[in-house]
Amino acid sequence: MQQTNKLNGQLNNYLGEYTDNHSLPSPFYTNPDVFSMEMATVFQQRWFYAACVADIPEAGSYYSFNLYNNSVFIIKDDDGKIRAFHNTCCHRGSKLCDEGTGDLAKIVCPYHQWTYELDGRLLYAPKMGADFDPSKYRLTEIALENVGGLIFICFSDNPPDSIQEVKKIISPYLDVYKIENTKVAAQSDLVEHTNWKLVMENNRECDHCNSNHPELMVPLYDAGFGAGLDDVNSNVCDSNDEFVQLYQTKRKEWEELNLKYEPIDFPNDLWLRVARLPLAHNAVSHTTDGKLGCQKLLAPFKKPETSSLSLWTHPNSWHHFMCDHIVTFKVMPLANNQTLVRTKWLVDKDAEEGKDYDLKHLMNCWIQTNDQDRRLVERNYQGICSNAYKPGPYSPGEMFVDNFVSWYVRQIKDLNT
Amino acid sequence: MQQTNKLNGQLNNYLGEYTDNHSLPSPFYTNPDVFSMEMATVFQQRWFYAACVADIPEAGSYYSFNLYNNSVFIIKDDDGKIRAFHNTCCHRGSKLCDEGTGDLAKIVCPYHQWTYELDGRLLYAPKMGADFDPSKYRLTEIALENVGGLIFICFSDNPPDSIQEVKKIISPYLDVYKIENTKVAAQSDLVEHTNWKLVMENNRECDHCNSNHPELMVPLYDAGFGAGLDDVNSNVCDSNDEFVQLYQTKRKEWEELNLKYEPIDFPNDLWLRVARLPLAHNAVSHTTDGKLGCQKLLAPFKKPETSSLSLWTHPNSWHHFMCDHIVTFKVMPLANNQTLVRTKWLVDKDAEEGKDYDLKHLMNCWIQTNDQDRRLVERNYQGICSNAYKPGPYSPGEMFVDNFVSWYVRQIKDLNT
Amino acid sequence: MQQTNKLNGQLNNYLGEYTDNHSLPSPFYTNPDVFSMEMATVFQQRWFYAACVADIPEAGSYYSFNLYNNSVFIIKDDDGKIRAFHNTCCHRGSKLCDEGTGDLAKIVCPYHQWTYELDGRLLYAPKMGADFDPSKYRLTEIALENVGGLIFICFSDNPPDSIQEVKKIISPYLDVYKIENTKVAAQSDLVEHTNWKLVMENNRECDHCNSNHPELMVPLYDAGFGAGLDDVNSNVCDSNDEFVQLYQTKRKEWEELNLKYEPIDFPNDLWLRVARLPLAHNAVSHTTDGKLGCQKLLAPFKKPETSSLSLWTHPNSWHHFMCDHIVTFKVMPLANNQTLVRTKWLVDKDAEEGKDYDLKHLMNCWIQTNDQDRRLVERNYQGICSNAYKPGPYSPGEMFVDNFVSWYVRQIKDLNT
Repeated sequence: MQQTNKLNGQLNNYLGEYTDNHSLPSPFYTNPDVFSMEMATVFQQRWFYAACVADIPEAGSYYSFNLYNNSVFIIKDDDGKIRAFHNTCCHRGSKLCDEGTGDLAKIVCPYHQWTYELDGRLLYAPKMGADFDPSKYRLTEIALENVGGLIFICFSDNPPDSIQEVKKIISPYLDVYKIENTKVAAQSDLVEHTNWKLVMENNRECDHCNSNHPELMVPLYDAGFGAGLDDVNSNVCDSNDEFVQLYQTKRKEWEELNLKYEPIDFPNDLWLRVARLPLAHNAVSHTTDGKLGCQKLLAPFKKPETSSLSLWTHPNSWHHFMCDHIVTFKVMPLANNQTLVRTKWLVDKDAEEGKDYDLKHLMNCWIQTNDQDRRLVERNYQGICSNAYKPGPYSPGEMFVDNFVSWYVRQIKDLNT
Repeated sequence: MQQTNKLNGQLNNYLGEYTDNHSLPSPFYTNPDVFSMEMATVFQQRWFYAACVADIPEAGSYYSFNLYNNSVFIIKDDDGKIRAFHNTCCHRGSKLCDEGTGDLAKIVCPYHQWTYELDGRLLYAPKMGADFDPSKYRLTEIALENVGGLIFICFSDNPPDSIQEVKKIISPYLDVYKIENTKVAAQSDLVEHTNWKLVMENNRECDHCNSNHPELMVPLYDAGFGAGLDDVNSNVCDSNDEFVQLYQTKRKEWEELNLKYEPIDFPNDLWLRVARLPLAHNAVSHTTDGKLGCQKLLAPFKKPETSSLSLWTHPNSWHHFMCDHIVTFKVMPLANNQTLVRTKWLVDKDAEEGKDYDLKHLMNCWIQTNDQDRRLVERNYQGICSNAYKPGPYSPGEMFVDNFVSWYVRQIKDLNT
Repeated sequence: MQQTNKLNGQLNNYLGEYTDNHSLPSPFYTNPDVFSMEMATVFQQRWFYAACVADIPEAGSYYSFNLYNNSVFIIKDDDGKIRAFHNTCCHRGSKLCDEGTGDLAKIVCPYHQWTYELDGRLLYAPKMGADFDPSKYRLTEIALENVGGLIFICFSDNPPDSIQEVKKIISPYLDVYKIENTKVAAQSDLVEHTNWKLVMENNRECDHCNSNHPELMVPLYDAGFGAGLDDVNSNVCDSNDEFVQLYQTKRKEWEELNLKYEPIDFPNDLWLRVARLPLAHNAVSHTTDGKLGCQKLLAPFKKPETSSLSLWTHPNSWHHFMCDHIVTFKVMPLANNQTLVRTKWLVDKDAEEGKDYDLKHLMNCWIQTNDQDRRLVERNYQGICSNAYKPGPYSPGEMFVDNFVSWYVRQIKDLNT
């Protein structure tokens, strides 16, 4: 499926038109050959976010999804080890698991019943005759790391070491939330008619938030997700000093709760940002009224608390951890002009729908916000298709957009030489 | 977006297979790379019909549409000047105006509120910091000419001079209709699964009319739109002499009304044809009963009159002016096998729906005719896709098809050397 | 439309990755350029199944269908001769006949009424002027053979001789059924999101049948359609001996009925297999209860009989002849990932719906089976798209899959050198 060669010498020309702190030249968004190249590089040779441990609660639980041409399933094996496999049978290539989630004792191909252990070994292949040796076949495994309950995978046989450093940094922030004790309360899929990088760029700044996200801004300060924590302007505080004062107060609370809060912004070329941020208006959750989305609180909390922990990773995810629920976002490129955004809402696994949480109330803030973002990034794509499009300059508030774009450019350069 | 190079040396081979007075070799209709080449040449370096002044009645009125990858908007600025812009923000490229019509005081990008004057100058860009100089940015303007109320644009920085000659020829025919005093009563969009040139070829002959357009033929003579005015056969006149006699009578009426009527057929490589033609059966309009579509008459008329003025332009429009309403057609290529035909019905701007005109009666003739033509040109495309297709000879009545095709071939040759 | 050249040197690389008795390397299923090459070779230079005589009962009856870019119609001319033509007018290329079936006195183009005799000669072309000579134009005829009532065509000007040998072998099996005395009782079209060769591979083995086709297996022995007649295991016979015994008994019945039954399995590189097989459980037809689908029996039968005659041809058909009805299947590639499967049910032409047959009962077995197969071959395609797909080994029961695949590889090699 690799079509990198179709780009011929063009890629260097496109890269030559890129200027620091500006959006990308149009072929990076609109050219199908660039997209194929990305699938063979960024999404082949780099780690990306795939799932969370709540997707596969038991031994035999699997979660299957597509990334471009690859169908993948993540499964908990009989020893409790989490593994990822390419979802294709060794016989005639049929897809093994249906998309979505399910439970299996063995992995049985529905076509001709080739039967695999949960660790990928071929156990039995009917009708293949006496000479057939099942031990010569096993499912193709994919590199996987569980980072505090978030599962990252890499298709490469030589995945980058960066995952270990990312794990070391992130785990202390996430472990206390015990994602393994949550369940997926709801999921929403949006197919957006835009390039995947525009979805990411949109996520990496909140300059657009005040004018476009009324529901989201209820529990947020003006700076949205804290771009420039040290220089934040609040729509509820009269002065910067007031926010700084609030932040100082909250730090003490967080220390008492043993919650890590130090902001980390994509250090040393690493592909993560983490920030704990006070919520505005005494909100205790990302809901349209700022009230709890789920009455059962998550592991670290005995009572409602007014902050959220946010995690952003390149190339394709972001996550918000409140005291009562977690919202997790995965971006999956489908084509140069089509992108799937999958959102999941996690709550305590013992919480009961109708009693502890109401799905509409729990989901509404991000259902609205996602749809507003969809319209923004679709317009953005439409405008970029114009012959008159020229890369424009980023604002100071778009510094993390620039971080994403320049990270992307570095990967493209590294992986195409 | 220019993909001309994908054609490599093929284009000359394709052109080599073209024979005078025959339809084009199949790649001109079916090959996506030929289509991309056309978008980078004919629809980039040549004038095409875009809109009419009734689309933008006031200062701040805009009309936005797509042509292939380009989104464009046409707007009347504060000084009443009509301008066309590429619909893409200088910041991150977002589309500015929604498709369709609307009214604006300033042009404000919905993404991050970059704010432009109606003449395209950037007035204000929030959050860009103190060093940012808005005067360095302005929207990309597109060459535009108002030709008697019909608006033509050209994407090129060096648009051809031909527009001035076309303007000089057409304006005297059109000015008397005062399109600025009309309004768009209705619009219909048809997405046709065919190549845009087959839509144009179909429009440039009426040999197919008697067998396919019963509604349209009610007010028309056999020769349809007057191919070979001097040699017309009428379905209402017993002899050619009778039509000639009628034509002589009508000429005197037209002279008294100060209506220009001399036929002009694509002179000197120019891309226009104009003809004033008597209607048949004493019809006063292109309606299915030949009666007025709108009781309020257009500027030059005090009472109903039995003729229509028709204008045809390469590469993408035709227009019919009756005494009571105007019908205007724009062809917009979407892909090698997909074309949008947009039809608008204009009436006096003070005419009232329900009182002066009934939309169904006003539109029915062309709604039926357009759909009949859609089926013809879709079949035409389907047949041309066959390996057995060979370009066939045009009839004498298809002389303006040949004119369009040979004009097209000349542009392709000029613009690819 | 030939795009073979886009493959450049790739095809040899792909062929180099092919191993005997294994499924094909992924580009043969997933690469659009391979698909274009196939359309220009296998489906251009080789015979394929197109229709049956029941589709065109009378002089002037036609049956029109598309194969990829080519629209074709098959027509019985005034002398009763069956002919195939490319469905494109010699004037401007318009499609002549609508898709499906109909009756014509002359072939008249709906665009400008060019009028052809049923043998393809141009009779009359209106408005072309005095100098026009109709005798210089005729429709492009396509090579056609009627093989015992099944119609095969070949687009090539030099179609392979193999058709004569195939005809000689098949006709004695089919003639007795007198397909000319049947009618098409029903048709079903399935557009399957898969490569056409996976549809064929699925058809060429029944290892998958027991687990996936409960309705189909009602009247069938375990071995499905008799892969390895000499080594069949039955789900109703206690031992192989019992099936052999039944087979011996049936042979005598067949001899008395003058029914040919000797199995023929793709001899000498020929593209056909034929087998007469006893039905299980005393079933007399391929229905979900094993009972007659139509009370009027076909020509050779005076009373119900418990066998079916099956015919399989490369590259695109299979057919089952029971004592009461015939089911015929045609595979038509639409794109590398899209395939049309058209199924027709034939019954005696004097049978009456509602009295002699109930459509739901007649069709149900294959409606269910076709849909089960659709899901299998779509999953198969999805899995093959994976980067991890590797061609796997065929089982002994998949010997006719291997036969199809190796036949295909030979044609590709022959036609690309």
